[in-house]
Amino acid sequence: MITIAVDAMGGDHAPRPEVEGSVLAARQFGVRILLVGQPAELRRELAKHSVKGLSVEVVTATEVITMTDSPTHAFRKKKDSSAHVAARLVRQGQADGMVSAGNTGAVMTVARFVLGTLPSVQRPALAAQLPTGKGGVTVLLDVGANVDSKVAHLLQFAVMGEIYYRLIFGVRRPKVALLSIGEEEMKGNELTQEVHGKLKEFPLNFVGNVEGREIFSGNVNVVVSDGFAGNVALKVSEGVAQHIVVLLKKALQSTMASKVGYALSRNAYREFRKSIDYAETGGAPLLGVRGITVIGHGGSNANAIKNAVRVAAEMARARLNERIEQELSALPVAVEA
Amino acid sequence: MITIAVDAMGGDHAPRPEVEGSVLAARQFGVRILLVGQPAELRRELAKHSVKGLSVEVVTATEVITMTDSPTHAFRKKKDSSAHVAARLVRQGQADGMVSAGNTGAVMTVARFVLGTLPSVQRPALAAQLPTGKGGVTVLLDVGANVDSKVAHLLQFAVMGEIYYRLIFGVRRPKVALLSIGEEEMKGNELTQEVHGKLKEFPLNFVGNVEGREIFSGNVNVVVSDGFAGNVALKVSEGVAQHIVVLLKKALQSTMASKVGYALSRNAYREFRKSIDYAETGGAPLLGVRGITVIGHGGSNANAIKNAVRVAAEMARARLNERIEQELSALPVAVEA
Repeated sequence: MITIAVDAMGGDHAPRPEVEGSVLAARQFGVRILLVGQPAELRRELAKHSVKGLSVEVVTATEVITMTDSPTHAFRKKKDSSAHVAARLVRQGQADGMVSAGNTGAVMTVARFVLGTLPSVQRPALAAQLPTGKGGVTVLLDVGANVDSKVAHLLQFAVMGEIYYRLIFGVRRPKVALLSIGEEEMKGNELTQEVHGKLKEFPLNFVGNVEGREIFSGNVNVVVSDGFAGNVALKVSEGVAQHIVVLLKKALQSTMASKVGYALSRNAYREFRKSIDYAETGGAPLLGVRGITVIGHGGSNANAIKNAVRVAAEMARARLNERIEQELSALPVAVEA
Repeated sequence: MITIAVDAMGGDHAPRPEVEGSVLAARQFGVRILLVGQPAELRRELAKHSVKGLSVEVVTATEVITMTDSPTHAFRKKKDSSAHVAARLVRQGQADGMVSAGNTGAVMTVARFVLGTLPSVQRPALAAQLPTGKGGVTVLLDVGANVDSKVAHLLQFAVMGEIYYRLIFGVRRPKVALLSIGEEEMKGNELTQEVHGKLKEFPLNFVGNVEGREIFSGNVNVVVSDGFAGNVALKVSEGVAQHIVVLLKKALQSTMASKVGYALSRNAYREFRKSIDYAETGGAPLLGVRGITVIGHGGSNANAIKNAVRVAAEMARARLNERIEQELSALPVAVEA
C-alpha cells in the first residue's frame, strides 16, 4: 500500500481541506495517509468524517510555517514544522511521498534540503499541470523553483518533464517544446537559443519552440522554461482565467433575458469552470528531489488535495525518481554543460 | 490636422481591414490618412466606401513584407515596402505617425532603423495595452522589441511607459510596477532585483513588484518587464482567453437548456467578448523611436486598425516623443547604468 504524508497545516484554510481531501483520497485511491500537524486540531477535523476501514493516521508536528515566513527562516528555524516532519517521513522511508499546500517557496526549500536532490540532478524544477483545450494536460516546468537558470538546468528540466509525462499520462513519446517568443530556432534569448540547439540532439521528441499561447492548445505535452518566465506564464494564466470569469458573470447579470439565460445554462457553466480549474489537475510535482513531493496551491480545496495525493501516489507507483536518475545519468555529457 | 500613414499591405487580411479601418478613423477622429501600398488594390478597396469629405489619400509602395520575411531581410531587401514608405513619410514630416498590422519583427526593425531612436533612448520598447477587470487598460512593456534586456533598458521602459500612460489616459500619477515572481523586493531574478532597487529612487509612482496575475486586475497601470517575459505574458493571455471562449461555447451547446440559455444571453456575450478583445484597445505603440509608430496584431480587423490610428493620433497630439526625450534626458545618470 502506498503511503502519502500530507502536510495538514500548510494551506490557507488548513487543516479543513487537507483532512477532507486526505479522507477522500484514502477512500477513492486506496492509499494510506499520514496527516502531519497539530494532533488535537487534526483529530477534531477527522471526527467530522467517516474513516471506517480507511488508513488515515495522525503524525505530530508542533510548528506551522506561515505564508509570510521566508523560505530560509522556515527551513532553518521551524525544524518541527508540518512540512519538515512530512519530508522526514519520506526521507526515512515511512512515506512514499509528501503533499503540501503550504508556502510554496518554503515547502520547496524544505523538500530540497531535507530530501536532497537526485545524484544526477543539478536543480529541481516545479512542474505545473495545466488543463488544455483538447481535454488533456500540458506540463510546464520550471514554474519558479529557480530564478536564474543555466542551459544545463533547462536540459534537465526537459528530460524530467518528459519522463513525468510518459510515466504518469502513459504517452509513449510526449511532445517536448521550449517556451520562447517565436517558433523559429533563432527566435528567443541567448538561453533559449542555446538550449534549442542542444535539445535537438537529445533522445526525446523535441518539437521546437512554442509561444505562450500554445501552453493551452494541447498541441504539445511538455513545455520547458526557465523558472522566471514559467512562473510569469502560470500566474498570467490564473489571472486571465479569473478575470474572464468575473467579466462573464457581470455581463450575464446585466439584463433580465441574460439572467434567465444564465439560470438555464448553470450546469454548463459548472462544467466549464471545472474544465479551467487547476484543482482538478492535482498540484505541481517538484521534480528532481530525492523523494516524491507534490505542492498544491495555497488556496487548495479538498478536491485539490485529493488530486495532489493521487498524483503523488501515481509517481510513487511509477517509481518516477528511479527512472529520472537512470535516464539522466545515461545521457551524454551535454547535460553537464 | 493630424496625418497618419497606414501600412495598408501588412496584415493577414490586407488591405481590406486596413482600408476600412482607415476610413472609419478619418470619419470618427477627423484625421488625415495616407494609405500606403499598391495603388490599384487600394483604390479598388476604397471604392467600396463613402469617403466624401474625408481626407484619405493613397501613397504608392511597390513591395510587400510577408509574415515569413525575416526582419533583416525585410529591412534590407524591401526598401520600397509599404512599411518602409510609411516610415519615410514619418521621417520626412509628411505624416505625424504610422500604423502597421504587418510582421511585428519586421515593422519594429524598419521603424527603428528608418526613424532611429530618440537621443536619450537606448532601446525602444513595444507596449501592449491590455483590458482589465476594472474597465481600464494596463500597459505592459516590453513585449518583445528586445530579447536580452539590461538594467538600464528596463529603467527606460518604466519611464517611457509612465509618460505614455500619463499623457494618453490622463492619469496624473500612474502606478508603475515591475513584473516579477513575488511581491517582495527580494523576489525575482538578478535583473529584476537590481531594477527594483533603482526604480525606488526614480521620480515616479513605483508600487513594487507584481506577479503575472496583476496584469489584468487593474490595480496597477504600467507593468515593466524584459521583452522575453513580457512577450510570454502577452501570448499566454491571448492563449488563455481563446481557450476559455472555446470551452465555454462547447459547454453551452451541450444541452437543450443551455442552448436556450445561450440564445437568451447572446447580447451579454457579445459585450463580454468585446471587453476581452484586444482590438478595442488599439495596438501596441513602439516607444522610444523618433517618430510615432503603432503596431497592430497581424489578424487586426477594421475596428483594430481604427483604434490603432486613434492611438497614433493621440500620441501625436500629446507630443509624446518630445516629452519622453525631455523627461529621460533630465533623469540622473542611473538610467545610463
